[in-house]
Amino acid sequence: MPGMMETVLNIGLNDQSVRGLAAQAGNERFAFDSYRRLIQMFGKTVLDIDGEHFAEALDAAKHAKGSTNDLDLDAEDLRKLVETFKEVVVKYAGRPFPQDPREQMDLAVRAVFESWNTERAVIYRRQERIPGDLGTAVTVCSMVFGNLGMDSGTGVAFTRDPASGAQGIYGDYLQNAQGEDVVAGIRNTVPLADLEGIDKRCYDQLLGIMATLEGHYRDLCDIEFTIENGKLWMLQTRVGKRTAAAAFRIATQLVDQGLIGMDEAIQRVTGAQLGQLMFPRFDDSAKRKPIAKGMNASPGAAVGKVVFDSYTAVKWHRSGEQVILVRRETNPDDLNGMIAAAGILTSRGGKTSHAAVVARGMGKTCVCGAEQLDVDTKNRVVRAPGGVIIKEGDVISIDGTSGEVFLGEVPVVASPVVEYFETGLGGLADTGHGADELVAAVDRVMRHADGIRRMSVRANADTPEDAARARRFGAQGIGLCRTEHMFLGERRQLVERLILADTDEEQAAELANLLPLQREDFVGILEAMDGLPVTIRLLDPPLHEFLPDITELSVRVAVAESRGEKREGDLRMLQAVHKLHEQNPMLGLRGVRLGVVIPGLFEMQSRAILEAAAQRIKAGGVPRVEIMVPLVANVQEFETVKQAIIQVARDVRAETGVHLEFLVGTMIELPRAALTADQIAEPAEFFSFGTNDLTQTTWGFSRDDVEAAFFSAYLEKGIFGVSPFESIDVEGVGELVKIAANKGRSKRPQLKLGVCGEHGGDPDSVHFFDHVGLDYVSCSPFRVPIARLESGRSTGAA
Amino acid sequence: MPGMMETVLNIGLNDQSVRGLAAQAGNERFAFDSYRRLIQMFGKTVLDIDGEHFAEALDAAKHAKGSTNDLDLDAEDLRKLVETFKEVVVKYAGRPFPQDPREQMDLAVRAVFESWNTERAVIYRRQERIPGDLGTAVTVCSMVFGNLGMDSGTGVAFTRDPASGAQGIYGDYLQNAQGEDVVAGIRNTVPLADLEGIDKRCYDQLLGIMATLEGHYRDLCDIEFTIENGKLWMLQTRVGKRTAAAAFRIATQLVDQGLIGMDEAIQRVTGAQLGQLMFPRFDDSAKRKPIAKGMNASPGAAVGKVVFDSYTAVKWHRSGEQVILVRRETNPDDLNGMIAAAGILTSRGGKTSHAAVVARGMGKTCVCGAEQLDVDTKNRVVRAPGGVIIKEGDVISIDGTSGEVFLGEVPVVASPVVEYFETGLGGLADTGHGADELVAAVDRVMRHADGIRRMSVRANADTPEDAARARRFGAQGIGLCRTEHMFLGERRQLVERLILADTDEEQAAELANLLPLQREDFVGILEAMDGLPVTIRLLDPPLHEFLPDITELSVRVAVAESRGEKREGDLRMLQAVHKLHEQNPMLGLRGVRLGVVIPGLFEMQSRAILEAAAQRIKAGGVPRVEIMVPLVANVQEFETVKQAIIQVARDVRAETGVHLEFLVGTMIELPRAALTADQIAEPAEFFSFGTNDLTQTTWGFSRDDVEAAFFSAYLEKGIFGVSPFESIDVEGVGELVKIAANKGRSKRPQLKLGVCGEHGGDPDSVHFFDHVGLDYVSCSPFRVPIARLESGRSTGAA
Repeated sequence: MPGMMETVLNIGLNDQSVRGLAAQAGNERFAFDSYRRLIQMFGKTVLDIDGEHFAEALDAAKHAKGSTNDLDLDAEDLRKLVETFKEVVVKYAGRPFPQDPREQMDLAVRAVFESWNTERAVIYRRQERIPGDLGTAVTVCSMVFGNLGMDSGTGVAFTRDPASGAQGIYGDYLQNAQGEDVVAGIRNTVPLADLEGIDKRCYDQLLGIMATLEGHYRDLCDIEFTIENGKLWMLQTRVGKRTAAAAFRIATQLVDQGLIGMDEAIQRVTGAQLGQLMFPRFDDSAKRKPIAKGMNASPGAAVGKVVFDSYTAVKWHRSGEQVILVRRETNPDDLNGMIAAAGILTSRGGKTSHAAVVARGMGKTCVCGAEQLDVDTKNRVVRAPGGVIIKEGDVISIDGTSGEVFLGEVPVVASPVVEYFETGLGGLADTGHGADELVAAVDRVMRHADGIRRMSVRANADTPEDAARARRFGAQGIGLCRTEHMFLGERRQLVERLILADTDEEQAAELANLLPLQREDFVGILEAMDGLPVTIRLLDPPLHEFLPDITELSVRVAVAESRGEKREGDLRMLQAVHKLHEQNPMLGLRGVRLGVVIPGLFEMQSRAILEAAAQRIKAGGVPRVEIMVPLVANVQEFETVKQAIIQVARDVRAETGVHLEFLVGTMIELPRAALTADQIAEPAEFFSFGTNDLTQTTWGFSRDDVEAAFFSAYLEKGIFGVSPFESIDVEGVGELVKIAANKGRSKRPQLKLGVCGEHGGDPDSVHFFDHVGLDYVSCSPFRVPIARLESGRSTGAA
Repeated sequence: MPGMMETVLNIGLNDQSVRGLAAQAGNERFAFDSYRRLIQMFGKTVLDIDGEHFAEALDAAKHAKGSTNDLDLDAEDLRKLVETFKEVVVKYAGRPFPQDPREQMDLAVRAVFESWNTERAVIYRRQERIPGDLGTAVTVCSMVFGNLGMDSGTGVAFTRDPASGAQGIYGDYLQNAQGEDVVAGIRNTVPLADLEGIDKRCYDQLLGIMATLEGHYRDLCDIEFTIENGKLWMLQTRVGKRTAAAAFRIATQLVDQGLIGMDEAIQRVTGAQLGQLMFPRFDDSAKRKPIAKGMNASPGAAVGKVVFDSYTAVKWHRSGEQVILVRRETNPDDLNGMIAAAGILTSRGGKTSHAAVVARGMGKTCVCGAEQLDVDTKNRVVRAPGGVIIKEGDVISIDGTSGEVFLGEVPVVASPVVEYFETGLGGLADTGHGADELVAAVDRVMRHADGIRRMSVRANADTPEDAARARRFGAQGIGLCRTEHMFLGERRQLVERLILADTDEEQAAELANLLPLQREDFVGILEAMDGLPVTIRLLDPPLHEFLPDITELSVRVAVAESRGEKREGDLRMLQAVHKLHEQNPMLGLRGVRLGVVIPGLFEMQSRAILEAAAQRIKAGGVPRVEIMVPLVANVQEFETVKQAIIQVARDVRAETGVHLEFLVGTMIELPRAALTADQIAEPAEFFSFGTNDLTQTTWGFSRDDVEAAFFSAYLEKGIFGVSPFESIDVEGVGELVKIAANKGRSKRPQLKLGVCGEHGGDPDSVHFFDHVGLDYVSCSPFRVPIARLESGRSTGAA
């Protein structure tokens, strides 16, 4: 876990031994420099003193010498600084700095052990269900000193560029310094290549070791080293972190160098990295004025006018403005503003803060915890470093992938990787930013993943346009085509009339009006997906979703009445709204229940689907229709609807003379459906897991209501490791998926199994679905490449 | 299944053989009577002709003779009637009555087989998951004729009185008739005892056979017989249906007669019957004016003024009137009226009609399908037989146990069985209606059930009064004490202030104000239940339930604004209501989530509970507190809250000096809790299944929204056999209960398991919970005796 590795250097020095070290090394400055470092590090790590107190004293000492470079402090300055540091310890720890080396060692060891019980560590273990009595380890080893003079130093080396993936020698070196100085940036480092001029022998030796290490790990290595009086010491090495672009380039480079094969290469990249490469990003070549940096809480590039509250955000958004909602931190009151904003920027809070959690849930760009910014919502200004003042209405640009904040509008460029998916390799021009090499790497990785993966990948798409795009992105069918979207827009009027119909006859007439419109929708989608399976879900949402909001309408009617006006239309609508109003619409009259209760509704939809298929066949097409019944809880519901669909199919066959083949299956999105999947599998020809609804019912919370209300608190307290809406909850929801898959296949061994919830595009979830043995995952078109890659990685890792 | 047994008598008669039968029997009248019966029964059962057409022709023939008795029809009349019946067949079946005996037999056999595929049979099999290819049987046997003259006849006999349970000879006899005449009531039957005077030999023989049959079945037998020319023929026997009171009396009588033991006796009665005996009922001795009879859809005795619509029902109810909602049939629009009414009466629909299903769900008295009533909602009158006119506002009384409807107010008497539970055997005076014998029987049955049952029975009770009553009814503890009820009434103001608090400090102050009030509640309950376990549930509902409704408040604010008024209080409240508003409150910020998110809330409640326990101990009491955390979905939530409770307990111990012992456990009411019960059982000391919420999340529907909206349609179409809110859904919800019980005990073998949903008082569900191995069931105080009996029956049947 990050932050759990604690280090204390230079242990053993005290007022007496510092003199011995000075004499032994013949270097008094070195000895006192080491001693002050010990007190500083020990004070912070072991005695829990705020590091700022030491940093201030160090700055004061440098200032007294008129310098900003600690090398300008001589032995005497450092001796005085040791005294000051000891006073800091007495003042803030309430005890003197321990002179006994044994006591220093004991306390340091205990501090490391106690890091096991910090709140953060406890929360981390709660999240990960790691037993609290497992314990941690402490390593004690002797020092090598990089601060022994100008023939000593310390550095960090990378065997390849972790930013771009380019081959070469990358890193930083700092003479006469100890390890933490490189990271803390208290002096300017030199590029690692300069070490050749400083100490060629060590440099050559380091290059040799770097080659050995990379050969051993067969990957980019991140190395820490120290030089003590011209002798090279290796401190540690690990496989290095890298950017998404670097990951793809390095993986294919290693293949070309013969270090790894393609099976291994696809394990070296992740779907999350591919996703990062697919977001639009700010133009590198444009002039950018960075004003702050925060956490990269939710990726993307957003540009808009600064607003400070939800009300303004909604108002400006409605009048067509792009806005960035800027807050110290967000809370549930800000929800509407977050929905209206193009991006969210906060000055407080980390990756589990309210803003971060909700923005990720919405797929909205967010930078959080940009602490250099002073957000003054009262006066409606943001004060940035350097005296920059941003007023409400000023334009800023935020980069959710890097965490950067820019003043003004930064031009956004499309991702070359998306262009590649849209047009293939041939359509790409080199943009001069290494895009061609990156795209070539992505292409090789994707081809290999596609070649080995067991699961197929489909897309969720409701229109011919989305379907066509999904196909370009590699979708092998549609896993979820929602028909309710076809009830919106201009057709809402027809649907209103359907709902307001007083008699079965009126209702039947309105359904008949909808039929040709629905049929046209399906013809378009089946054409775009010709030859590939298309799963069409019958109507799912409760009917009142197509009517006005009860509170808004009640207010309108009451206000009109108080003015003595009577609006017959509104009144009649209000009656209908009242009749259909539900306390908990998610748990109400929807899905298959509509099909059972409203005569003719599912029949009309099935007829539209099957007539569309017949039309396509007559036109020479190959429609592969799968009709999906939503929200089934018991097999009787499914049987009732399936029976009606089969009858419609007989009729359509008789009327059109076209022989139709199609499947009828169901979503598994309620715990009861999963638990009785063996019964349901008898009549159902396929299952598609609706993991969004399944998560909501298994946990008993609705995403709309709880994500903003308490997910941030839950993540902070370690009750979740990750939101179960982002990545599938393996122990709960996943258990039901497993139960349903096993029970379903026990009755129908060839049962086709897929998933069409948003988890279908989440990397970890894709691996889970592969392990459970699903046949396909389906996700939004944009996530199809991610699912293809992760599906391949899962097969490859098995 | 009822209605699946079809019978056709007298097969083989035709225009020719009728003469042979006449000659053979020397009785032409008998032969033509049998022939007309064949055509009538064959026409109805085999040829699907409405029976009314035959009945009308029969009535016309009798009318022509100036009689209402079919015995007054002579051979010639019957010969003519045969001709008329044959015309009816031609007219309505479009074919002549078949003269070929072989064809008659083939068609009759086919008709019986085809009854397998009637819609009703198909629905029944769908409900019960009976395979459709199982098939049915047809029995063909030779006739004995009860219509051969006055020395012939047919009758029904009961070995005891099925109404009261009294011992003796009960039944009806009809001379010169065939079986269906007794049931159809076309002539007046004579009491079975009169057979002694008509045919003493047959009577004595019948009595002997009845004794043999009762000895064999060791139970009340229901017998059908025919006498043909002085010879007794037994047609069939089965164990007879009986009233609830008869069931208890007969069971103990059989024990006293040595026919069965007490173990068997408790199997002869049911909790449903005990429940019927506990409803208040109309005074038998009072004058009653019956006007109609419908289905006994939901038990109880209700008196009130007739209203015809939901709006009037609510209005009159609010002004303190008792009302009976009268409709042809109800629909979801009537829901508010049904809630406001004391009882519901409809003229259409059966036991699965909307009115019946919703009323049962509400525990509200309902008579449905009273077809003699003409409900004219337009003119706001009900027309009853005999020219009776009931106007809006007239008082009627409806008996949901018998289905009877009475004009005017019938006095209601308390149940003697309830008096017995309240006061014990000694406190009862004989009411002169056999109540003492009934109560003695109930007492013997209850003592035996209590003696053998494995599970204990607790009550759900929120006040000291309810707790005391539950204890009198035999509750062995409280399984669910809801603390939200303590937030209502006069305390609502405090809760509002708590919710509206702007700062953590204000919130803490409001919580401190609530503390002593909650403590007093708990002291009272712990005193009433001294020595018995009391499970107290921490706050469960979302906080906005304590605030005004968003639509009502929005309308008030908007109307005031449109008048130029500003109400600061309303505006501030509206802000709070908006902030807390949830799309799906059942799936929102409630239960343990409140405890995690709102600082100090659960701590305050735990402190009130534990301080109350300490106070009781100091007063010499024995409080046995079990603190229950609601709506837990994962173990981390529970751990977080348990940790806080343990800290409170340490504090209370330190402050009061009292050593406190108590349990901390959780409800299992979400699928995820059941699926991860092994993890949750590590810190949780008990589980209580909240089967209401578990049913809602497992099926994905909320009772409030769906019971009125589609349960009636679901029951009619056979999608449910019974509402899963009435009786536990064994395959879905029950599966989760089993999983949780097994997983929980795998980690903590002594884990205490109970159920506190409404199913705890449902007979079938009690058996299920016993089989799964729960330690106790908890239900409303009134249902405690039912649960005690059914728990004993379950143990006894094992």
